[in-house]
Amino acid sequence: MKEKIDRIVESRETKAGLYFDYTIQVLILLSILGFTIETLPNLSPQLVDFLEDFEIFCIVIFSIEYLIRIYIARKKLKFIFSFYGIIDLVAILPFYLSFGLDLRSARVFRFLRLFRLIKLIRYNRAIRRFSIAFHMIREELIIFSVVSLILIYLSAVGIYYFENAAQPEVFSSIFSSLWWSVVTLTTVGYGDVVPITIGGRIFTFIILMIGLGIIAIPSGMISSALTEARSIEKKKNIQETTKATLPE
Amino acid sequence: MKEKIDRIVESRETKAGLYFDYTIQVLILLSILGFTIETLPNLSPQLVDFLEDFEIFCIVIFSIEYLIRIYIARKKLKFIFSFYGIIDLVAILPFYLSFGLDLRSARVFRFLRLFRLIKLIRYNRAIRRFSIAFHMIREELIIFSVVSLILIYLSAVGIYYFENAAQPEVFSSIFSSLWWSVVTLTTVGYGDVVPITIGGRIFTFIILMIGLGIIAIPSGMISSALTEARSIEKKKNIQETTKATLPE
Amino acid sequence: MKEKIDRIVESRETKAGLYFDYTIQVLILLSILGFTIETLPNLSPQLVDFLEDFEIFCIVIFSIEYLIRIYIARKKLKFIFSFYGIIDLVAILPFYLSFGLDLRSARVFRFLRLFRLIKLIRYNRAIRRFSIAFHMIREELIIFSVVSLILIYLSAVGIYYFENAAQPEVFSSIFSSLWWSVVTLTTVGYGDVVPITIGGRIFTFIILMIGLGIIAIPSGMISSALTEARSIEKKKNIQETTKATLPE
Amino acid sequence: MKEKIDRIVESRETKAGLYFDYTIQVLILLSILGFTIETLPNLSPQLVDFLEDFEIFCIVIFSIEYLIRIYIARKKLKFIFSFYGIIDLVAILPFYLSFGLDLRSARVFRFLRLFRLIKLIRYNRAIRRFSIAFHMIREELIIFSVVSLILIYLSAVGIYYFENAAQPEVFSSIFSSLWWSVVTLTTVGYGDVVPITIGGRIFTFIILMIGLGIIAIPSGMISSALTEARSIEKKKNIQETTKATLPE
Repeated sequence: MKEKIDRIVESRETKAGLYFDYTIQVLILLSILGFTIETLPNLSPQLVDFLEDFEIFCIVIFSIEYLIRIYIARKKLKFIFSFYGIIDLVAILPFYLSFGLDLRSARVFRFLRLFRLIKLIRYNRAIRRFSIAFHMIREELIIFSVVSLILIYLSAVGIYYFENAAQPEVFSSIFSSLWWSVVTLTTVGYGDVVPITIGGRIFTFIILMIGLGIIAIPSGMISSALTEARSIEKKKNIQETTKATLPE
Repeated sequence: MKEKIDRIVESRETKAGLYFDYTIQVLILLSILGFTIETLPNLSPQLVDFLEDFEIFCIVIFSIEYLIRIYIARKKLKFIFSFYGIIDLVAILPFYLSFGLDLRSARVFRFLRLFRLIKLIRYNRAIRRFSIAFHMIREELIIFSVVSLILIYLSAVGIYYFENAAQPEVFSSIFSSLWWSVVTLTTVGYGDVVPITIGGRIFTFIILMIGLGIIAIPSGMISSALTEARSIEKKKNIQETTKATLPE
Repeated sequence: MKEKIDRIVESRETKAGLYFDYTIQVLILLSILGFTIETLPNLSPQLVDFLEDFEIFCIVIFSIEYLIRIYIARKKLKFIFSFYGIIDLVAILPFYLSFGLDLRSARVFRFLRLFRLIKLIRYNRAIRRFSIAFHMIREELIIFSVVSLILIYLSAVGIYYFENAAQPEVFSSIFSSLWWSVVTLTTVGYGDVVPITIGGRIFTFIILMIGLGIIAIPSGMISSALTEARSIEKKKNIQETTKATLPE
Repeated sequence: MKEKIDRIVESRETKAGLYFDYTIQVLILLSILGFTIETLPNLSPQLVDFLEDFEIFCIVIFSIEYLIRIYIARKKLKFIFSFYGIIDLVAILPFYLSFGLDLRSARVFRFLRLFRLIKLIRYNRAIRRFSIAFHMIREELIIFSVVSLILIYLSAVGIYYFENAAQPEVFSSIFSSLWWSVVTLTTVGYGDVVPITIGGRIFTFIILMIGLGIIAIPSGMISSALTEARSIEKKKNIQETTKATLPE
């Protein structure tokens, strides 16, 4: 019995397992869609009722799924404290707690189920390649982040001293200037915080020249690392093929 | 007779075929230009009349071309249901239907003829290189898209909870927040939807740091794949050259 | 005599030649700076007078330089119709013509002298590497441009049909929509033209996903081509070194 | 005694040295945080007092650290005029000078201590790889910068002639247009300066097409150089391994 359930819930090789998997995934998507619609203002009471009923339905299904997964897990505690075990619990728990307490806002944790969808990705080779590449540039990424943070802070200090006098409302403190730094150096440029003094504009120009150079770096690093990861993979394949074809 | 037409319509090796091809392409461009001008408000009635006459002229030419292509096609049904066969039909059909029905808006399908212009591109080697590269990173692209979509959704949920109370008009629901996510993570930054709370701004900063890292990935992937595609191509050329020069 | 001048004007090996070169380049920069300052509104009459005097001074020097270059050129006609010959003439001619005619606005051509500054770049190896790389991806760049133009046009047609009814002033025709396409797909996002309908926003999302993928391509192409150019250069160097060290 | 202090201040191998290092770094971060908070408007007098006291405390500690570093340095003058020596002095000096003079604004130099944090980065291999890569593309970077500057200037001249008549307030001179060039070509796009004439918009489109191609170049260069740097590093490692394993 337990084995049979296990084969359905954990494996995708049987037809029943495949259907079970798809059902859960579609339900996750629908439950997230429902949660998204619920945030719309001016919904008709009928729709609100329907969405709440549907939420209860989803929670029941997800609770049963959670209990089944605990039931079939060999090491129950290990599953409960695993990444997916915690996600599954956090996604249903607020609902039960909200009966007694006022935890409506905690229902937001339902969106955590999104991470379950990552299972949809089953391209192991590509993921391995990514993880090799990221492992390779781990050190570069840290250096890059530290340098970026320092640049963002220095930009904020600089623009504060150029613009504070001219726009005391907008560049009211270095904290406001930090917002400008982030929006500008990422080239988002909302336009809510814009330098107007000549000094501030020349400073922005210099900062952007440096910043764009720095923003170009991660793309270059990833490209370089992926090329390397691909060539490592290829060498391995060749070695394996050579081993397999070599007479022993 | 049929063969003669075929040589004109399908091949570009004869002078007549070349002229025919250029005439059709220029006519496509002009018909699209006419369609674009037609959308201008406050056109003089003379210009509107001229554009309508020109449209009828184009449709007549394209209809004749369509019929000729069916006539010379060996497998007529295969052509009719081919990519270009359908485009050609969809581009002229609304005009004929609009006589009886009110299908003026359906005339927009004329722009589909644009795809005919893709034939202008005849750099087969470069296209083959692109297609090898894209085939290589197909799996990475899917992973990338799924991760991007999840990030966009999570950003929308997050900013909704930070900004909804402060700007209920702007961040009115997660759907509005999704618009913010898209505009921000692509670094377009129109400035129509901007976080103003401290929490929302810090959240934006974190999301942008992650998002820009993710946006740097496709460029890196394409670069890596094109390098690989180029080296595969080169190896093939060398092999072919080696084969050709080897004594047999 | 002629040879002596030639050595000063054309070569940088003598001290006089070096000084001559630097003087001209500094004068070009100053003349461009003067031209830029002249556009400022509300200048004091003294400054305007000074800038006009300085302009006359520059024109005189550049005219003398131009005449000297013609004088020392072996093939005078070839120099006059060469790239730099035409630039030099176009940069001074409007001044002389403006005595008789009202050609003040033609003085803008002075900025053409900027191209003279390109001579400042003397890193031949790096430029050769760039030109090898660009030659390599010429075909890809053309495909990329055509595909980009088609995408920009299709985006404009699409957003026009989504937004025209809701914002007839902003998306008044496909021409206005083209402006939106350009500003959005390049991720500039001024915020002067923004979709507000749900359909238009979803369309923007899809277009941006495709567009950002396409924008990532040139960076990948250039990276791949530069890697290749570098390796070609290295191989050549090795071959040359091998040839040089081989006994003959 | 001097040796003992030296081991604490300069080395991180002893436990005391590690603690000393962390204490100083945390103090730098706190002092910068304090400096950032101080710029907030409408602070309570108590907080202002506390921040001033904390500043004095930090200055005392940093002064002692500075004196110790001079004391233990073998070549005292060399330390005083070294990069970190000057940073340390400039970060504390304004405080002492501000007793006599009104140098409050000079206190901004405290942020220079940020550079001390660069020591946090201790990934020597990655930094070496970066520096190899940057050394490799030094020439390309200079060419790229010059071409970018010329493009930015030409864009400013162009847009000035297209937009000045229509928006004399916004595009009042080439200097204002330069601000537009920078904001547009970096794709920041604040939206404070936007072309409205048809000519200006077509010009923007062309400039952006060229500009985005140019912006794609540094990313490609860095990627190409990092790939190269990685392969150089690998070859060196192999050579070293080969040398080490070869019988002598």
